[in-house]
Amino acid sequence: MKSTPYLRLSFILFTVLFIFAYSWYPLSKPARHGCFKFPIWCAFKNRTVHAMFGSILEPQISKPKNLFPETPLHPLDPLTIQEINKVRAILSRYAPFAWSFPAIHSLSLDEPDKSRVLEWEKSGAFPPRKASVIAMLNGETHLLIVHLDMGRVMAHVTNPGPGYPIVSMDDISVVLQATMSNEEFNKSIIARGVKLSDVSCLTLSPGWYGPEEEGRRIMKVQCFSSQGTPNFYMRPIEGLTVTVDIDKREVVKISNTGRGIPVPKGENTDYRYTAQNKPPEMEPLNPISIEQPSGPSFRIENGHMVKWANWVFHLKADQRAGMVISRAMVRDSETGELRSVMHKGFASELFVPYMDPDEGWYFKSYLDAGEFGLGATAMALVPLNDCPRYSYYMDGLFVAADGTPYVQPNMICLFERYAGDIGWRHSEVPVNGFETRESRPKVTLVARMAASVGNYDYVFDWEFQTDGLIRIKVGLTGMLMVKGTPYENMNRVLNKDGMTGPLVSENVIGVVHDHYISFHLDMDIDGPNNSFVKVNLVKQETFPGQSPRKSYLKAKRHVAKTEDDARIKLNLYDPSEFHLVNPSRQSRLGNPSGYKVVPGGNAASLLDLHDPPQLRSAFTNNQIWVTQYNRTEQWAGGLLAYQSKGDDTLDVWSKRNRPIENKDIVLWYILGFHHIPCQEDYPIMPTVSASFDLKPVNFFESNPILGAIPNFEKDLPVCWPPASSY
Amino acid sequence: MKSTPYLRLSFILFTVLFIFAYSWYPLSKPARHGCFKFPIWCAFKNRTVHAMFGSILEPQISKPKNLFPETPLHPLDPLTIQEINKVRAILSRYAPFAWSFPAIHSLSLDEPDKSRVLEWEKSGAFPPRKASVIAMLNGETHLLIVHLDMGRVMAHVTNPGPGYPIVSMDDISVVLQATMSNEEFNKSIIARGVKLSDVSCLTLSPGWYGPEEEGRRIMKVQCFSSQGTPNFYMRPIEGLTVTVDIDKREVVKISNTGRGIPVPKGENTDYRYTAQNKPPEMEPLNPISIEQPSGPSFRIENGHMVKWANWVFHLKADQRAGMVISRAMVRDSETGELRSVMHKGFASELFVPYMDPDEGWYFKSYLDAGEFGLGATAMALVPLNDCPRYSYYMDGLFVAADGTPYVQPNMICLFERYAGDIGWRHSEVPVNGFETRESRPKVTLVARMAASVGNYDYVFDWEFQTDGLIRIKVGLTGMLMVKGTPYENMNRVLNKDGMTGPLVSENVIGVVHDHYISFHLDMDIDGPNNSFVKVNLVKQETFPGQSPRKSYLKAKRHVAKTEDDARIKLNLYDPSEFHLVNPSRQSRLGNPSGYKVVPGGNAASLLDLHDPPQLRSAFTNNQIWVTQYNRTEQWAGGLLAYQSKGDDTLDVWSKRNRPIENKDIVLWYILGFHHIPCQEDYPIMPTVSASFDLKPVNFFESNPILGAIPNFEKDLPVCWPPASSY
Repeated sequence: MKSTPYLRLSFILFTVLFIFAYSWYPLSKPARHGCFKFPIWCAFKNRTVHAMFGSILEPQISKPKNLFPETPLHPLDPLTIQEINKVRAILSRYAPFAWSFPAIHSLSLDEPDKSRVLEWEKSGAFPPRKASVIAMLNGETHLLIVHLDMGRVMAHVTNPGPGYPIVSMDDISVVLQATMSNEEFNKSIIARGVKLSDVSCLTLSPGWYGPEEEGRRIMKVQCFSSQGTPNFYMRPIEGLTVTVDIDKREVVKISNTGRGIPVPKGENTDYRYTAQNKPPEMEPLNPISIEQPSGPSFRIENGHMVKWANWVFHLKADQRAGMVISRAMVRDSETGELRSVMHKGFASELFVPYMDPDEGWYFKSYLDAGEFGLGATAMALVPLNDCPRYSYYMDGLFVAADGTPYVQPNMICLFERYAGDIGWRHSEVPVNGFETRESRPKVTLVARMAASVGNYDYVFDWEFQTDGLIRIKVGLTGMLMVKGTPYENMNRVLNKDGMTGPLVSENVIGVVHDHYISFHLDMDIDGPNNSFVKVNLVKQETFPGQSPRKSYLKAKRHVAKTEDDARIKLNLYDPSEFHLVNPSRQSRLGNPSGYKVVPGGNAASLLDLHDPPQLRSAFTNNQIWVTQYNRTEQWAGGLLAYQSKGDDTLDVWSKRNRPIENKDIVLWYILGFHHIPCQEDYPIMPTVSASFDLKPVNFFESNPILGAIPNFEKDLPVCWPPASSY
Repeated sequence: MKSTPYLRLSFILFTVLFIFAYSWYPLSKPARHGCFKFPIWCAFKNRTVHAMFGSILEPQISKPKNLFPETPLHPLDPLTIQEINKVRAILSRYAPFAWSFPAIHSLSLDEPDKSRVLEWEKSGAFPPRKASVIAMLNGETHLLIVHLDMGRVMAHVTNPGPGYPIVSMDDISVVLQATMSNEEFNKSIIARGVKLSDVSCLTLSPGWYGPEEEGRRIMKVQCFSSQGTPNFYMRPIEGLTVTVDIDKREVVKISNTGRGIPVPKGENTDYRYTAQNKPPEMEPLNPISIEQPSGPSFRIENGHMVKWANWVFHLKADQRAGMVISRAMVRDSETGELRSVMHKGFASELFVPYMDPDEGWYFKSYLDAGEFGLGATAMALVPLNDCPRYSYYMDGLFVAADGTPYVQPNMICLFERYAGDIGWRHSEVPVNGFETRESRPKVTLVARMAASVGNYDYVFDWEFQTDGLIRIKVGLTGMLMVKGTPYENMNRVLNKDGMTGPLVSENVIGVVHDHYISFHLDMDIDGPNNSFVKVNLVKQETFPGQSPRKSYLKAKRHVAKTEDDARIKLNLYDPSEFHLVNPSRQSRLGNPSGYKVVPGGNAASLLDLHDPPQLRSAFTNNQIWVTQYNRTEQWAGGLLAYQSKGDDTLDVWSKRNRPIENKDIVLWYILGFHHIPCQEDYPIMPTVSASFDLKPVNFFESNPILGAIPNFEKDLPVCWPPASSY
């Protein structure tokens, strides 16, 4: 097929998967995330583009003059360009790779131990810089620790487990080439009435379903017609699934079950602004904006340290986790002391099981962070729309398969929010001229990232409040993963029970699915050693004669001794608060200093515990977990998540049942969504979001924002309508 | 005691209760809510004040020139001043009241039947105006319907049930006079070392606890020291409870159990801005504001009809419910048709049980809407702090105990919100110059009210989104109801298990309590007749050989036939979606037009089902209920909630088990909070909020905001820092 001149091939990075279209071919070089077909200078080319994205007022935000410093300024700073290059050089000289440089699947800072970071904060002693590398060579996985100062590999493990690392663009390229050069595949496409030039494909992770696919890296390919719309997701070529052995570079199976199912027409699916020809059926909205003409109140020091109001934290982009918050500290409202709240917090894994047992669907049970990377798939945010004016944009500096660094521009935004909400208030009825009406506006700081893992977009918000609360919110938007069907109308469907989701357009089923995001929250309330306390609200019956009341609730504190005590399934009728406290630090009243995790809306996985996808994502077996800190336990679905078997999950670690009282412990919160699609989700979904809070509880001596300053008219911005409105 | 010259008495309207301080005495006339000691002209005096509250740009919002029209312009408009006066005149002439005018406990529009309102929308035939009156005379309760056009009482029922109407200011006055003139009470106060001039008291509803207090209207009085702080709530005179028979005007019992408990010092409890002498320990925030210099995009027609984007609804203040949204309709995104979503929505009751069986605490189990009124206790909002700039403020027009109208100024605000959130988005990895990065900002409309029911403040938000979603949110702030204790430090407490809440300051316990708000949601999806469909997600096991997957979830639809089928206890491990659909209206795909109620964070009452407070608030026995529409079933805890016995609750109505399939039905959602206080809640609580959504599901043919317009720099406001910042 290589000689066919009309074939064009392009790559679009995908969720859980990668797409190809016949638009650019052949690949001269494996494309790199965010910086395709360019050598390293393209990073800086994109950087120039970055500057153009910013608001005209953005320069008011202090930015480091040296955008990418050569040397790190904080022990948790990501590897610099120079450091990445040095790692590549060290690996090139490393004996096992002397004859062939491996494919780099992950290359990032090997974070120093917490004690070294704390030591640096006190004494300025900068810990040694190390890189953690996951590479593949000849089908074997290599885990390496590279010591940058010593200039050598200091640890090396081969094939540590049954799973594989994050897929690389090389893998995608291989898989697509194998698919496209397969005659049976091409015939199948043409037989469906789809032009090869209109085909876009997704490269899907296969999950793990027993011996048949074990011991070899495979990938599934499914395709769509992009004829007439960039939203090819809504035009599946149903039932055509190609399985490719990545390392053997060959198609091992083609499943073609959906021959009778038409490719949906996909009319009116183009969501781009430029494609809209009909104004929405509503009154137009006047310009509205969060305005702060004196500039935002936060500053970013040394590229990563965020300082705002009473908060200080380290913020960085990560190729796998997306966004990492470290060393979050809040200033004590009475003493001014900067107090530790959280050593490290990030989205550790994202599990998306689809609820369809069919041949072309059963395997769709993605672990997006470990299979594709939340940072790798987080494209540049859209100024004024993804983030308001006065946002600060932070880049990611990532590593391509050949070990070279590249820039993921404008990947994170940071902005101050005023949403018209109330920090606290009270009023009394006015009597005799005395009147109490006190209210304080709520202003917060938001760090945001949006991962476009294929069809779905996940908006991650970390919101910091001056009262010490941190709200972690995930918004779901983007496109549904849909299934072709012969039906155009529900009334024609004889076996409604056979459908795995509702009809959301003609010939289009929105397949029911779930989303679970596990958050790794290494809380350090006033120091590393904390305890987990379940404050259970229990019904008490009064004894005869005690009270006219028959019952009341009592808060009963249970300090968790081991990990077994800290696996929590939320239950509305067995309610608890979940505290992390520092037993060594008491308030003046004798209450331990603490934070609590406050669930909001949530969903639990109901899959069979022995179902392969549930084994791999066993971190969804509970909503809250607490584990003893262990530096190797970062990724809730396992370090090597691709085709993993579930032997390295949070569930496995927790079952070691280690002591967790007054220890360095990690809180895990699992945020879930059930999604039964509906017509409103077609052709692009309005954002649905859910959140949970980390909230101080007897951490401060009293309300830390008692002295907050109210808004006065004289202090607010002075604004005029835009010139465009005249 | 009346002759004691240093006694001063003042009244402060309370949550669940009323306060008095010896600051003004005697009462020349019962004070009226919001307009104390003034005749009707004070309404207009306050109205002048109102104009001063507004932002300088407020005039850009269209307001009716005639602020209080003489005649109603919509069948659901509240009674006008003239109508209220006419009702009073009719009642004055009414034979049973010829010798003595009754105390008016409630006087409001008797809303016309839905069919009449729909008829008016079509033909303009204005239905007759009627008033619903609840009055008391000589200890008897009278329910009356007054026909305004016919000028006569058309229905009259006496003592329809065991409960009593909302308390009036006359009642408060009687109770406080009885208390203050009681020698034992005064001696008890002095014995506690509190000056009589420093005493502030709350008049608390007694709940219902069996025969002893049945058949007579009683009220409980508890007092505080306001010495050195306006935040007397933090200084309880613990254990001193006076029980007064309102109609006999006499103290029937004094309980004085807390003699050994000191009055807490209450240092640093003054939350007023003017009292702050220490700046907060944080970096100051630059000015920030939601700006829309071209004015907001909504307009208010005829005083009550709100029109914004694709939404139209009727908004009014209500003395009992606070805020009522009626006739909410959204414009179809394709046809432009204005489609019905909800006939009427409001907070129907608010239940607040405290978890302490002690003599001075057991009865604290308030039904704030039915006992005191959410509107009656909603004071004027604080511009720029309770609501952002460009807010429109709406007044309440209520009725005092003597039947005269008064104004509750600036009681509701309406504003447009942009919080930096995303309506929908998608991005793809840029390849070959092709780049998709589409995102739409989310702008919403919020109607807000804050009821200061004594110590607690409840912020009610109804937020309308252009994608058809309505979010209903309740924020809790204000002051804790605290209990005195001899202890200053937890480490001194020998019997920690005996405490009914944590120590939140020296000698101050924050007693554990719950809050439950029941929302009456008369949904009319495309018309009055709807069905309730539970879409249950059920685990399916695959059969052998069917699939490598062992399990998946299937959405199973159950149409509720009767009210029994629609009592829902939320369960994370038995998840469902809860749809209200119009079975007569299908989308082009054959899906019924619907909305779903989407729970967020919630809490369930765990009290014994036979405990008196739980019987009275049996609407908290489930989180979701659906009932057949019945015009008498508005108040979930009963029409006459004061000392009610639970014979007129949502639970009783639902157990009639009426058919609800394809009927005019009402959805009830119960939003709950457990509150274990902490130090941060002292001396005033940072707002805690929870919400639920009403969300279109196959109501629109597709995403209704596909054509939404993105933000462009040129269309945004042009702002400068305020002069005060130079």
